[in-house]
Amino acid sequence: MQRTEISTLGEFGLIKHLTEKFKITNPSTVKGVGDDAAVLHYPDKEVLVTTDLLLEGIHFDLVYTPLKHLGYKAAIVNFSDIYAMNGQPKQITVSLGISQRFSVEDLEQIYEGISTACQLYGVDLVGGDTSASLTGLTISITCIGEGAKGKIVYRNGAKTNDLICVSGDLGSAYMGLQLLEREKIVFEADPGTQPDFEGKDYILQRQLKPEARKDIIQKLAEKEIIPTAMMDISDGLSSELMHICSQSNTGCRIYEDKLPINIQAAMMAEELNISIVTAILNGGEDYELLFTASLEDYEKIVTLEGVGIIGHMTKPELGLHLIGREGEEIELRAQGWNSLK
Amino acid sequence: MQRTEISTLGEFGLIKHLTEKFKITNPSTVKGVGDDAAVLHYPDKEVLVTTDLLLEGIHFDLVYTPLKHLGYKAAIVNFSDIYAMNGQPKQITVSLGISQRFSVEDLEQIYEGISTACQLYGVDLVGGDTSASLTGLTISITCIGEGAKGKIVYRNGAKTNDLICVSGDLGSAYMGLQLLEREKIVFEADPGTQPDFEGKDYILQRQLKPEARKDIIQKLAEKEIIPTAMMDISDGLSSELMHICSQSNTGCRIYEDKLPINIQAAMMAEELNISIVTAILNGGEDYELLFTASLEDYEKIVTLEGVGIIGHMTKPELGLHLIGREGEEIELRAQGWNSLK
Repeated sequence: MQRTEISTLGEFGLIKHLTEKFKITNPSTVKGVGDDAAVLHYPDKEVLVTTDLLLEGIHFDLVYTPLKHLGYKAAIVNFSDIYAMNGQPKQITVSLGISQRFSVEDLEQIYEGISTACQLYGVDLVGGDTSASLTGLTISITCIGEGAKGKIVYRNGAKTNDLICVSGDLGSAYMGLQLLEREKIVFEADPGTQPDFEGKDYILQRQLKPEARKDIIQKLAEKEIIPTAMMDISDGLSSELMHICSQSNTGCRIYEDKLPINIQAAMMAEELNISIVTAILNGGEDYELLFTASLEDYEKIVTLEGVGIIGHMTKPELGLHLIGREGEEIELRAQGWNSLK
Repeated sequence: MQRTEISTLGEFGLIKHLTEKFKITNPSTVKGVGDDAAVLHYPDKEVLVTTDLLLEGIHFDLVYTPLKHLGYKAAIVNFSDIYAMNGQPKQITVSLGISQRFSVEDLEQIYEGISTACQLYGVDLVGGDTSASLTGLTISITCIGEGAKGKIVYRNGAKTNDLICVSGDLGSAYMGLQLLEREKIVFEADPGTQPDFEGKDYILQRQLKPEARKDIIQKLAEKEIIPTAMMDISDGLSSELMHICSQSNTGCRIYEDKLPINIQAAMMAEELNISIVTAILNGGEDYELLFTASLEDYEKIVTLEGVGIIGHMTKPELGLHLIGREGEEIELRAQGWNSLK
């Protein structure tokens, strides 16, 4: 494979090379890459802003993460935060810190992933920063989106008796990560072996190339459901439920037999002797939506494809509990992903 | 000095601890820190977005950079980009990647600097991300601001014969950096020595605690001057002039005897045997404003305190030149700060 040194292009040449293929598609983007700041126009909407910092060795391992997927995921996790406000992502800025280990071709791969995500989700690249780094790869993405006035969904609006709903399945991204980590150890012990990924495509995809639930936000709008509170699940169900309960001043009860389990994830959990329920509660990185809704919306929600009701909110003094298959109450604790611990 | 390990607070505890003192002051900030995204309201303005990534060892050296100043500067450089669009900064997000070397008290210092800058410039902290890092300190700041429709100033609007203007003086931040680097080498050779900073306070301040030229933007508005093109000078005068000329399709002539020199910077340049003109052209980090204005605004501009006219734009085929004291023509080249070279 060809290797072009970044120094041959210089900072401005590199930015131009990487960004010139990106086309502006949103009317809210007045001016994108190329000036001191991007210019956006949001006369009739609320502006949503979210940001994520991804560091090599902490958030991703380049041993098993293709750069194209990394770029895709870095964009997706930001889009997901905007959807979690009941908004639509519209613009991103991308800042990269890159060590000498990376070539122009490597950066092209990252930007190809970002470009694919942007095209699929209708988002414009409008700025960023590119810098040398002494060590490893740093990706900082900021996403700007729009929300309709009065329809933005915060974490603090859940009420006692509200339904607790989640999209898709949970724990699969975590099981995908466990599989990749296992195969990495096997490979390091014996570089001749081929990884054993047969029948595990789904959990790998959930870890390496997750999607943001644009479709769920659209379905909620079509059915005229405005959740009372919403978050995306990046740290694990327990941690996110604790945020919503704490900010809404409620407790909650969720039911083990209602938790959305994928069969590949469950088999992987069994193979690795991990509890799939623990993976669901504390695994993280599924980027599914967790939301609460008024009981009045029950009839609409049960017809929502890809959404399950897993429990309900309670008075705050009842605490946060998982109800097991035998009816036992287990207190929820946040053991979600926390890079600082 | 007390040292509190970051792990004792955890990710969410740390964010809360660092951000709870920040108060929201702008009506455009609907919701700040604490949800998936911040919510902003810009019904009558254009939204400006800029972002900067600062990496330890590349953009700053903690041997001589106090953390409080680092936080201040990291915020200021982003504000400066918004002013350079003829806008007003209103919100920032702050993402930090921090290695185990840093304590809670260290982060408090960084945030104190950010807070001081925010208060002074009227900017709200509305979000961010905090993560462990394997190596060193990473700071990624995104700044959002507002600009009046029709009054935003881009890099591409300069015309032949427009005046070229700069605020303040140039080269001082670079001379401050050279001084700090010299004293670092002296200190490393003999840790017993005290640095010799007497009479050098101005150039040190220009390097360690620069300001963004909010005052100049205000004066331009008061005098009803809308520059035809504008940038802030972060990479050096030559590099920025090349951006404006290239995007505006013009050439330029600037005059050596019009370049704004500070006496401390000039003395330091002499002491270190560096040409002060080279420092001005290629030094960078002054965060002064470079703008072009129509000849019709000449009378207004000459009365603008803190702004000097250094030359004029020409037809593109005449190229970019510095006219020396003896009338000699020197072609301008970009040797600005470029971390990727």
